[in-house]
Amino acid sequence: MSISEVRAAYTERAEEYISLLGSVADTHELDRELITRWAASLDGPLLDAGCGPGHWTDHLRRLGHDVEGVDLTPAFVARAAERFPAVPFRVASFDDLGVPAAGLAGILAWYSLIHLEPDRVPSALDELARCIRPGGSLLLGFFDGVSIEPFAHKVVTAYFWPPTAMAQRLEAAGFAVEEVHTRTDPGRRPHAAIIARRTS
Amino acid sequence: MSISEVRAAYTERAEEYISLLGSVADTHELDRELITRWAASLDGPLLDAGCGPGHWTDHLRRLGHDVEGVDLTPAFVARAAERFPAVPFRVASFDDLGVPAAGLAGILAWYSLIHLEPDRVPSALDELARCIRPGGSLLLGFFDGVSIEPFAHKVVTAYFWPPTAMAQRLEAAGFAVEEVHTRTDPGRRPHAAIIARRTS
Repeated sequence: MSISEVRAAYTERAEEYISLLGSVADTHELDRELITRWAASLDGPLLDAGCGPGHWTDHLRRLGHDVEGVDLTPAFVARAAERFPAVPFRVASFDDLGVPAAGLAGILAWYSLIHLEPDRVPSALDELARCIRPGGSLLLGFFDGVSIEPFAHKVVTAYFWPPTAMAQRLEAAGFAVEEVHTRTDPGRRPHAAIIARRTS
Repeated sequence: MSISEVRAAYTERAEEYISLLGSVADTHELDRELITRWAASLDGPLLDAGCGPGHWTDHLRRLGHDVEGVDLTPAFVARAAERFPAVPFRVASFDDLGVPAAGLAGILAWYSLIHLEPDRVPSALDELARCIRPGGSLLLGFFDGVSIEPFAHKVVTAYFWPPTAMAQRLEAAGFAVEEVHTRTDPGRRPHAAIIARRTS
């Protein structure tokens, strides 16, 4: 989907989305553990790229991290700033995250690439790689599938990604894949997470 | 490798293996978390199948689980019984684990299938499935690889397994794969773990 389509779709459903999915308390314990542990391994500024309601950004800030949240959707950014006044939020897209080259120790992109047309994912990963210093880390969350294919996500079309295919795109963008986790929870679409280190 | 070859190889190096790998303190924190969480989700007797030095069996027992350790190698069973006198250990192989059908809530098979010739893995999984009650769970640990292929493991030939290939064998044996975790630690062979539920 185009940036404007995704933005429009989330703008329309921002309040509903925030109430359903905008709290860390409603997330899976294993996701909390993974995100917490990943951030604890990093020393330096973090970015929550595609922060949506800002709950993970706030979670990282509460853990003591220097973190900023960016999102495509101004309605999310405005509400996140309201809900979590101690945390900086701003509007940005994967075309340009507005971060100096190698300026970050890590980026969390939690279900942030899911609406990108698959052939636009490599350039988004290039932008993520540009912002992360060598040795820094990226944590991706996405929907696990047996092939790269679209599905009717509640908000706007999203894509399943096999972790192997995502890992290949990550390696092409200058990352070394360190961890891959997949999980199937009853009544949910299969989940995948990848931790990848910026190598150069 | 045949049962007798694997047993002979481990018998020869049992003390060295115990001193290098026989303590939970030397394991990876994520493995401890995974095994602990998996066991906490189960209610009923557990089996540590291929328990080696018995450290995971002891770990589970300390957490309050009803657990028994079995191993192919009598030298391991003898030393495990000596090291952890509160825990039951006995000699058994994947040909016959010596457990009544559907007698267990869960089986831990942590790096226990790695020396099996790949075409013998399905029958071992059938035996694991036989012992686990419907709704019970299997936790497998193994070496992650891009294809099923042998390598010169320090003790005796072992095999890499792609998690997708192992998942396929698990499904054929009556399991539903719930979680797949892979990890690459510096200086180690890639690791994989799968949690699979016995469906029928």
